[in-house]
Amino acid sequence: MKKETLNFKIQELGKPAILSPTALVNFTPDSKRVLYDRYINNFNATQKDKATPLSIEIAGPRKMIYFDPAKVKTAIVTCGGLCPGINDVIRAVVMSLYYRYGVKNVAGIKYGFQGLIPKYCHEVVNLTPEAVKDIHTLGGSILSLSRGSQDIGKIVDTLCRMNINIFFCIGGDGTMKAAELITEEINRRNLKISVIGIPKTIDNDLNLIDKSFGFDTAISMVVNAIQCAHVEAKGAPMGIGLVKIMGRESGYIALNAALAQNDVNFVLIPEVPFDLEGEKGLLKVLEKRLRTRNHAVILVAEGAGQDLCADNGLNQTDASGNIRLNDIGIYLKRKIEEYFEKNKLELNLKYIDPGYTIRSVPANASDSIYCELLGQLAVHAGMTGKTGMVVGLYNGEYVHLPLKSVAFRRRVDTRSNLWTRVLEATGQPVSMKN
Amino acid sequence: MKKETLNFKIQELGKPAILSPTALVNFTPDSKRVLYDRYINNFNATQKDKATPLSIEIAGPRKMIYFDPAKVKTAIVTCGGLCPGINDVIRAVVMSLYYRYGVKNVAGIKYGFQGLIPKYCHEVVNLTPEAVKDIHTLGGSILSLSRGSQDIGKIVDTLCRMNINIFFCIGGDGTMKAAELITEEINRRNLKISVIGIPKTIDNDLNLIDKSFGFDTAISMVVNAIQCAHVEAKGAPMGIGLVKIMGRESGYIALNAALAQNDVNFVLIPEVPFDLEGEKGLLKVLEKRLRTRNHAVILVAEGAGQDLCADNGLNQTDASGNIRLNDIGIYLKRKIEEYFEKNKLELNLKYIDPGYTIRSVPANASDSIYCELLGQLAVHAGMTGKTGMVVGLYNGEYVHLPLKSVAFRRRVDTRSNLWTRVLEATGQPVSMKN
Amino acid sequence: MKKETLNFKIQELGKPAILSPTALVNFTPDSKRVLYDRYINNFNATQKDKATPLSIEIAGPRKMIYFDPAKVKTAIVTCGGLCPGINDVIRAVVMSLYYRYGVKNVAGIKYGFQGLIPKYCHEVVNLTPEAVKDIHTLGGSILSLSRGSQDIGKIVDTLCRMNINIFFCIGGDGTMKAAELITEEINRRNLKISVIGIPKTIDNDLNLIDKSFGFDTAISMVVNAIQCAHVEAKGAPMGIGLVKIMGRESGYIALNAALAQNDVNFVLIPEVPFDLEGEKGLLKVLEKRLRTRNHAVILVAEGAGQDLCADNGLNQTDASGNIRLNDIGIYLKRKIEEYFEKNKLELNLKYIDPGYTIRSVPANASDSIYCELLGQLAVHAGMTGKTGMVVGLYNGEYVHLPLKSVAFRRRVDTRSNLWTRVLEATGQPVSMKN
Amino acid sequence: MKKETLNFKIQELGKPAILSPTALVNFTPDSKRVLYDRYINNFNATQKDKATPLSIEIAGPRKMIYFDPAKVKTAIVTCGGLCPGINDVIRAVVMSLYYRYGVKNVAGIKYGFQGLIPKYCHEVVNLTPEAVKDIHTLGGSILSLSRGSQDIGKIVDTLCRMNINIFFCIGGDGTMKAAELITEEINRRNLKISVIGIPKTIDNDLNLIDKSFGFDTAISMVVNAIQCAHVEAKGAPMGIGLVKIMGRESGYIALNAALAQNDVNFVLIPEVPFDLEGEKGLLKVLEKRLRTRNHAVILVAEGAGQDLCADNGLNQTDASGNIRLNDIGIYLKRKIEEYFEKNKLELNLKYIDPGYTIRSVPANASDSIYCELLGQLAVHAGMTGKTGMVVGLYNGEYVHLPLKSVAFRRRVDTRSNLWTRVLEATGQPVSMKN
Repeated sequence: MKKETLNFKIQELGKPAILSPTALVNFTPDSKRVLYDRYINNFNATQKDKATPLSIEIAGPRKMIYFDPAKVKTAIVTCGGLCPGINDVIRAVVMSLYYRYGVKNVAGIKYGFQGLIPKYCHEVVNLTPEAVKDIHTLGGSILSLSRGSQDIGKIVDTLCRMNINIFFCIGGDGTMKAAELITEEINRRNLKISVIGIPKTIDNDLNLIDKSFGFDTAISMVVNAIQCAHVEAKGAPMGIGLVKIMGRESGYIALNAALAQNDVNFVLIPEVPFDLEGEKGLLKVLEKRLRTRNHAVILVAEGAGQDLCADNGLNQTDASGNIRLNDIGIYLKRKIEEYFEKNKLELNLKYIDPGYTIRSVPANASDSIYCELLGQLAVHAGMTGKTGMVVGLYNGEYVHLPLKSVAFRRRVDTRSNLWTRVLEATGQPVSMKN
Repeated sequence: MKKETLNFKIQELGKPAILSPTALVNFTPDSKRVLYDRYINNFNATQKDKATPLSIEIAGPRKMIYFDPAKVKTAIVTCGGLCPGINDVIRAVVMSLYYRYGVKNVAGIKYGFQGLIPKYCHEVVNLTPEAVKDIHTLGGSILSLSRGSQDIGKIVDTLCRMNINIFFCIGGDGTMKAAELITEEINRRNLKISVIGIPKTIDNDLNLIDKSFGFDTAISMVVNAIQCAHVEAKGAPMGIGLVKIMGRESGYIALNAALAQNDVNFVLIPEVPFDLEGEKGLLKVLEKRLRTRNHAVILVAEGAGQDLCADNGLNQTDASGNIRLNDIGIYLKRKIEEYFEKNKLELNLKYIDPGYTIRSVPANASDSIYCELLGQLAVHAGMTGKTGMVVGLYNGEYVHLPLKSVAFRRRVDTRSNLWTRVLEATGQPVSMKN
Repeated sequence: MKKETLNFKIQELGKPAILSPTALVNFTPDSKRVLYDRYINNFNATQKDKATPLSIEIAGPRKMIYFDPAKVKTAIVTCGGLCPGINDVIRAVVMSLYYRYGVKNVAGIKYGFQGLIPKYCHEVVNLTPEAVKDIHTLGGSILSLSRGSQDIGKIVDTLCRMNINIFFCIGGDGTMKAAELITEEINRRNLKISVIGIPKTIDNDLNLIDKSFGFDTAISMVVNAIQCAHVEAKGAPMGIGLVKIMGRESGYIALNAALAQNDVNFVLIPEVPFDLEGEKGLLKVLEKRLRTRNHAVILVAEGAGQDLCADNGLNQTDASGNIRLNDIGIYLKRKIEEYFEKNKLELNLKYIDPGYTIRSVPANASDSIYCELLGQLAVHAGMTGKTGMVVGLYNGEYVHLPLKSVAFRRRVDTRSNLWTRVLEATGQPVSMKN
Repeated sequence: MKKETLNFKIQELGKPAILSPTALVNFTPDSKRVLYDRYINNFNATQKDKATPLSIEIAGPRKMIYFDPAKVKTAIVTCGGLCPGINDVIRAVVMSLYYRYGVKNVAGIKYGFQGLIPKYCHEVVNLTPEAVKDIHTLGGSILSLSRGSQDIGKIVDTLCRMNINIFFCIGGDGTMKAAELITEEINRRNLKISVIGIPKTIDNDLNLIDKSFGFDTAISMVVNAIQCAHVEAKGAPMGIGLVKIMGRESGYIALNAALAQNDVNFVLIPEVPFDLEGEKGLLKVLEKRLRTRNHAVILVAEGAGQDLCADNGLNQTDASGNIRLNDIGIYLKRKIEEYFEKNKLELNLKYIDPGYTIRSVPANASDSIYCELLGQLAVHAGMTGKTGMVVGLYNGEYVHLPLKSVAFRRRVDTRSNLWTRVLEATGQPVSMKN
């Protein structure tokens, strides 16, 4: 094939002249295209050329490394909440250090950054291939985690005392911010400690990262819950399956899970406000659906509709500083039940909150492969002496990203194809705001 | 974050000055980078600009469509061998036609292209939402498949007789070639029949397509088989787990499965020739491994080492024209057993051939989501009147590709990161050729 | 082997003379033994002998049947709540009638007994092998269910109007009671309609029945939830995993799930009252466990501790007449959190309520085999003209039981080996009552 | 309910007067019944009564124990081939010794009885709760196994040298025979070593034992393979799915797997000889089936039809003394292909040999619960000073059985309900012998 042939418009039978019946707002024009080649092979040369497009450093083993494998000391810490695949990453880091570079000194820090603060008296674990060989079959983290920030100075003190040279931090946006501060403190003290982040967020909402590890597993678990909700909804007259899942600030899990099998009829996410009452509100739309189809499945992310149930709780924060949310699932359940009772309609609502069962399972094969690579690439980056960075997948390519570039969260863009596809898959109204 | 910050080299502790101990040949230089933005928003405008990089049409719903939903007649055919997710694609096409466009006329052609040739007398199935709603829980294809080519003229005759307007073809490279010939014949007769391909190959070796559907499921099944092989290898003294899997001409499944969990010690693929005998040959290397580690896991793609066992069979072809391969798995098993017996070494070799169990399972959640999207996008393309094309994932983006651009196979590039990562993960020699 | 050798005591090294350190109350004396043979081959002969032990009719195909396969009309109804395996039973009944007896007339009644009451206007489904061949891959019931009783006279009227000869009822104790009333009404009218029950209760608490279908699948789902709870409990300092599961009146699911893997530390069931406060109460015991082991897993059946949280709700009943329970899970969560806060102890309590996800999944292989047999045996019994009975597994043998003998629930016997084994497996105190 | 009501015949609509159309030979007469109560509570008293039926000692914790928990030393060995659940049993023994009795001295013998013979120099592993806590998530045996017998005298020498008091042997009939010889040698030397067997055979063919551990898991794996075969058979015109599974001398796995879902059309087991050729032979019957139904699924146990393919190999034995079988799967495949080719019939035969993937997976929930109990009961028996026995499930009750009573294999009784049910489920001819 001549690749130039790609550069033409796809053949058409004729000029499309009928307005699409799909009630979408975000169509894809033929004129938006994706570049065929997105690599630059000689970055330095092009630095002088102002027209050079932005580009990102690619991850992988380097020919020249910085640390002497025989002497280097390394440490791993896991922070925040559980996520499928943490043990796979730990295992990959240890195995890669040991078998690829001959590095035998890997310290496992217990209970997150607490493990680097003397007063907590947490033990340090010696991570050998023997100790980690089977841990990928277990959910959770063999190192345990903790939430909350700790004194950056004391953390660096402990790293010094332990003579750590490479410090692998597995965690979310808060952890990446802390890792950035640690890197700054290390730079300030002029130490030779490489800080390598491996971004973890089950919500898949880290800036620039295509897909965080555990996300694929989480979706497969949510898809199971949706199937149950669908079975329940169809199992009784006027049945509703209402599933509440994670997604504090973004709806990526909900959207991706809803794209499987078309069984979800309404997806509610933090990024898209909606009304309950009124002509366009969820309750009326839901009633209409039940009258015609006899069943409905609703998937709601925990951060959705917080404006609706805001007055029912106290906006406290947890140890990581996350705002405690009001339970939109329970709230919706009650509101729907009240509405159907008021309107004297039969209702069989089954509420499903899979909760922690989504995040504490072992990684599936796909995430397992991904974690294995992230761990290897983190080791390569660390051994080369890179620091203040994370490894991640960007546009399908494994890259090095500065810590600060990923240390905040992205949200679903409602003008994106993703949201459009979900509107299509569910058939829900483009907006449920009056 | 300012996106310009991406444009710089990642911070380094110092200049790497130590040669890496990893015995790799393919390192990633810092100077190879990936473009930040790979979209072009105004294709037509840039056509005149000779410097414009190649780009590809993006898939999705178009505002203006070509066919009248009330009148359009459509048909689906599935060709070749089984692959997880075929039923998901059929379901998505039917559901999307019905619920998004109101198209109710979807014919299911049975047993591949045979179903369009009158002499076979295969029935045509009426595909309704009711008929397909649960088929994604089943492996295989509810339409059944067949291999082999049929008369293009007769196929188009039947499409005409049935008044088909959109013809969805699910199949591999052979099917895509046939679909291209069908499109040409349709053009020649000046008919208004849109031909939309949905590429299927469990080996993931279609040109330009990032990932074919079913690949993720297949890998998860192979990973299960590898885990069994690993358990068996470690379950007895001097244990070898030898796993033979699909991969006639390419080793993508083998490579990806080997990247999970590092438990595979040798991956043998069609693209990388190897010797059995001699100092660098597999047998000597294997003996060395067993003497030090007591167990080994070997993963071999069916198309590997065909030069070694070539004289044992007759190179016949099957109905699809695929060359019948000699069984490299059985051959390796015999050769290894002979070698260890000759050298008076204990051996517990367990041979595992998961075979068809990999391809006849239902799609996992990830493939299910992917198939759902492919089906929807195929419907959008067909309804818009596009023809002679496939929908597929290219560099992380869903695109339209000309049929002819995907109608042949790619092979593993041994200079790629993929192969390098596998060498790392297995620790096998860069070459086992003397 | 001579089977008489079984009749002796097992060889001992000497007389056991040390009191067991296990804090159990229910030891098994050597003198309690189980019979080798438990069949009677000539029931009629032994009827005269007063000393003859109780015995039960064995299920299976009979040589002589009552109904003419060419003319018989049959119907199936599914009542109550969902349970894994309902579709397997439906499928087995249809397949067995069709392929073993040549019976082609099988009506599927929709939405439980509602489907036999004209005013609901539910359609009747024609159940053919083609229609049911793949339904075992789906959770739920293709016929849907409903709760609540209906007019027995009208049900029999409809059975007459439809000319039904064999009526298969799948449901729980309430359904079996209704089936008994239907049988009595049929007898009263002197009709030739066989009523065959297939007992369904996910709680496994039907009198005399060893194991109800779906129970094995339910336990495997609960075991998954327990694993998640264990992972969560160990994932953070002072972690508790609290799992609430079904079990309104009996704790069979909880007990069996707790016997897997020893990861549960406290099992709370309806049959065993407990205190929260006081020296022997759960809270103190829990605190002690956390201080020494840093984590704990609690499994609570929904019907447990209702005396503790009784005053928080109104004891309403649902459509089936089941009393609505107060949520012991939420109650325990709050009480534990209050206690630890009051005592200024760190706490990471993760609450898991797998709920409907346990009952709406497809049956696993073991239940699938069991359902297949139940369906076949029900067909044999019906074709032979038996009526007013259920098929079930009693002491490892498939038998016919009178409807009235199973139409009520059993509860866990706290003097049984089952409860003793759970005390052992969890290590929890024999009593948590002060 | 009055339990006396059970004692009557089930109500009948009338006297069955039609001969059943099912072509079975083994019907269940109403007169064969099962006893309601099968326990004897005072064994000693009834010893004098000659009419007392045979009975078996029940397993469970005894109030008085024989060994002092603080001093007792124990060892575990695993022999033979892999089977799901071995690690669960090891874990249960270690956990139960540690947490229920406070026994801390548990030696893990590596590579079966080899580990007790000095010349092999295998290490002994110290089994602590920490070491075994997660091993149930892994297939295989953490202790590894070996086949073959070793010198009984040397084994007992080593047990003495290690001061072992309780010796837990996990293995099949060969291992139980060895354990019996070890017990005799111990008795001869007048040593105080308790020998407790935990019977393991994936084929479920140990005498007297209802169900061996791992059997349920194995069946679920075989059911998966059958589903694949069914999908493949229906995926192409004139499709056959041929599945070969384990079952050297008995067909229990094959029969139980075939009872799930009715998808198997022919089950071939060692106990039932069959012909290939001739009017009643498999090939003719198979042709008839394909002509009418277009597809067929065949399930063959490895020990079936050995008379047919006997002349193709040399009847060697493996290290355990098992006769090496000729491959009936490959043989059938070739014979069927030849027959269809000779008769000029299309054929799409897919051969599936799941092999080791069935036995090297972790135990499912049901087996996990079972293994947990077996391990606990073995500990209770050992601590009480019992010896020369196994723990097992007999007629639904956990019992103590003399080693010699289980140390041989049973075979499928073709007059049993099990075989009858399979004939029904498959619809295959009662005999395929001419």
